[in-house]
Amino acid sequence: MDPRTADLTTVALWEGGDAVRLVEVPLPEPGPGEVLMRVRLATVCGSDRHTVSGRRSSPSPSVLGHEAVGDVVATGPGGAPADDGRPLAEGDRVVWGVTVTCGTCDRCTAGRTAKCRSVRKVGHEAFGSDWPLSGTYAQHLVLPRGATIARVPAALPDELASPAGCATATVMAALEAAGPLTGCRVLVSGAGMLGITAVAAARAAGASQVLVTDPDRARLDLALRFGATSAHGVDAPVRATDPTSGGGTALGPVDVAIELSGASPAVTRCLDALDVGGRLVLAGSVAPAPPVPLDAERVVRGWLTVTGVHNYEPRHLGAALALLADTRDTVPWHELVAPAVALDQVGRVLTGPPGVAPRAAVVP
Amino acid sequence: MDPRTADLTTVALWEGGDAVRLVEVPLPEPGPGEVLMRVRLATVCGSDRHTVSGRRSSPSPSVLGHEAVGDVVATGPGGAPADDGRPLAEGDRVVWGVTVTCGTCDRCTAGRTAKCRSVRKVGHEAFGSDWPLSGTYAQHLVLPRGATIARVPAALPDELASPAGCATATVMAALEAAGPLTGCRVLVSGAGMLGITAVAAARAAGASQVLVTDPDRARLDLALRFGATSAHGVDAPVRATDPTSGGGTALGPVDVAIELSGASPAVTRCLDALDVGGRLVLAGSVAPAPPVPLDAERVVRGWLTVTGVHNYEPRHLGAALALLADTRDTVPWHELVAPAVALDQVGRVLTGPPGVAPRAAVVP
Repeated sequence: MDPRTADLTTVALWEGGDAVRLVEVPLPEPGPGEVLMRVRLATVCGSDRHTVSGRRSSPSPSVLGHEAVGDVVATGPGGAPADDGRPLAEGDRVVWGVTVTCGTCDRCTAGRTAKCRSVRKVGHEAFGSDWPLSGTYAQHLVLPRGATIARVPAALPDELASPAGCATATVMAALEAAGPLTGCRVLVSGAGMLGITAVAAARAAGASQVLVTDPDRARLDLALRFGATSAHGVDAPVRATDPTSGGGTALGPVDVAIELSGASPAVTRCLDALDVGGRLVLAGSVAPAPPVPLDAERVVRGWLTVTGVHNYEPRHLGAALALLADTRDTVPWHELVAPAVALDQVGRVLTGPPGVAPRAAVVP
Repeated sequence: MDPRTADLTTVALWEGGDAVRLVEVPLPEPGPGEVLMRVRLATVCGSDRHTVSGRRSSPSPSVLGHEAVGDVVATGPGGAPADDGRPLAEGDRVVWGVTVTCGTCDRCTAGRTAKCRSVRKVGHEAFGSDWPLSGTYAQHLVLPRGATIARVPAALPDELASPAGCATATVMAALEAAGPLTGCRVLVSGAGMLGITAVAAARAAGASQVLVTDPDRARLDLALRFGATSAHGVDAPVRATDPTSGGGTALGPVDVAIELSGASPAVTRCLDALDVGGRLVLAGSVAPAPPVPLDAERVVRGWLTVTGVHNYEPRHLGAALALLADTRDTVPWHELVAPAVALDQVGRVLTGPPGVAPRAAVVP
């Protein structure tokens, strides 16, 4: 074997706009605290499509992609721990979180590592930075100290585990913010990857009803297969619940609403559907949108709570894997991921028409 | 002693508008679960002023007044428990909660007794109903089964204990909703009775900073005497905190905001002042007001929480008494209550110019 070949790896380099090309780069030695990872399978998150289409800003050139399953190739001097504290070993099959955090700033020490003051993100760093191999659309990537890395249960196939570090973990953070769901009526607003996952997660958490709203009929049908108890278009009637009345409506009252679409009218719909003591978790509003009119009197008289969740904490990665493993025989997770394509097809996938589902997969 | 006189009591009957007159009525025997109470001292809540001025709807004729200290005269057959479960005895000096609840509906069993589906309220029931003696502007009142009644610590004078069942307990509910305050930067919006109480309660709960806002300079000065660390007019600059920056402003960032004024611009100011992970408790918005524009993206990216509190739960009455007792030597609570007037002055007090502080007191 030619040592020069052995020392190279291939990455899909995004050069801005819709330009993605494969380039060979030297395979680095992991430094202290770093882990060199071989990508087994990556899935294509909608946010990468937004980056390539210009709706989302990201440095270029760079290697995109943040959700994947990989094998540990090597750890740097001194090793590196998994999320359970035990050291990672060569060959461990793992997933990882999107954020890489310092662990020492005020936000990290307060338990808000997702808002670390020097946060870096997998698949979001410039190729010219000190972390060039940050993305998963590649044969290899490097995870620095401060990444969250979790071993994948043996029974969980790569294509099911790959979204754990993005959509699934974010949903687990949203569910934690919603509080206990046992016996609750839950509204899931938006039936994209996160919404479909939230439907299954809410059912697994004991929700008695899971209502789902989305403008797309195919997504609603998918949500029903994932356990939604009823599916509604975005024009479904929602009568603002009178806190002093027990009357119900098509879309309410509910105990919990989880908003994943980011659309302002959807946020309003969720607020209107909340019963007394209801909790609304906002997780989809990650782009500028018209302000939502908030009726403070209704919030007060209804003991309502509105809470925002952005990204997630390390514990939610483990929770995501546990959900996927626990429900792999009862929830049709495989419907969310398409048969994998090769790395040289990433550009086509990123610039192609957005799929509702399944999510594209890449095996480099 | 004339037995006819012994069987009568005097109440201040509100007959609608600004008409309040003293009437003598038969003193009832308490029925099962009921407690007959002699009023020692009542304080005049601002909501009664709103009722008399027509800003707030309430049945008339009725006996107004809900916050007071009383002595137990008699309990009905089978007795009645205090909030600690022990039976009440004649002569016990007590305060009580505003709400009387059924204890069996879905909201009561879910722990939201404040929103009981058949809630009744002290000082809010028609004189012609089956609870005529519901108000504290009277020599006596009756508390039905489902009232929360708590013994007053011996060291706490009547005039300090009287607001416990209204302003103080509501503040304790708001503080509970805000979560732990130790080391937190807290903004109190509005320096009326609730705001002043919230300042003292936040300091007692370990807040490192307590900022207070109000348009009235005298209220701000009072707030400073109650422990506020800084006082600001409502035109104080508030820069919306960039979640990714550590910059501070005159009014922010804070970890917790407690909004007690009910003014929509004040709600906005509180939202703008919240740091990452910040919690806003709304408790003042109990009347219609213009909607507050909510930036859902800021809620999401900032992991913000907005939660409403209306009235309180039985546990908060005990918490209120504990706060007042624990701080009676360090907080100038006496500044909040004026020297007491006689019962025949209630009408004058209710229709007179609203005082900033102190709160009027009545000894019937």
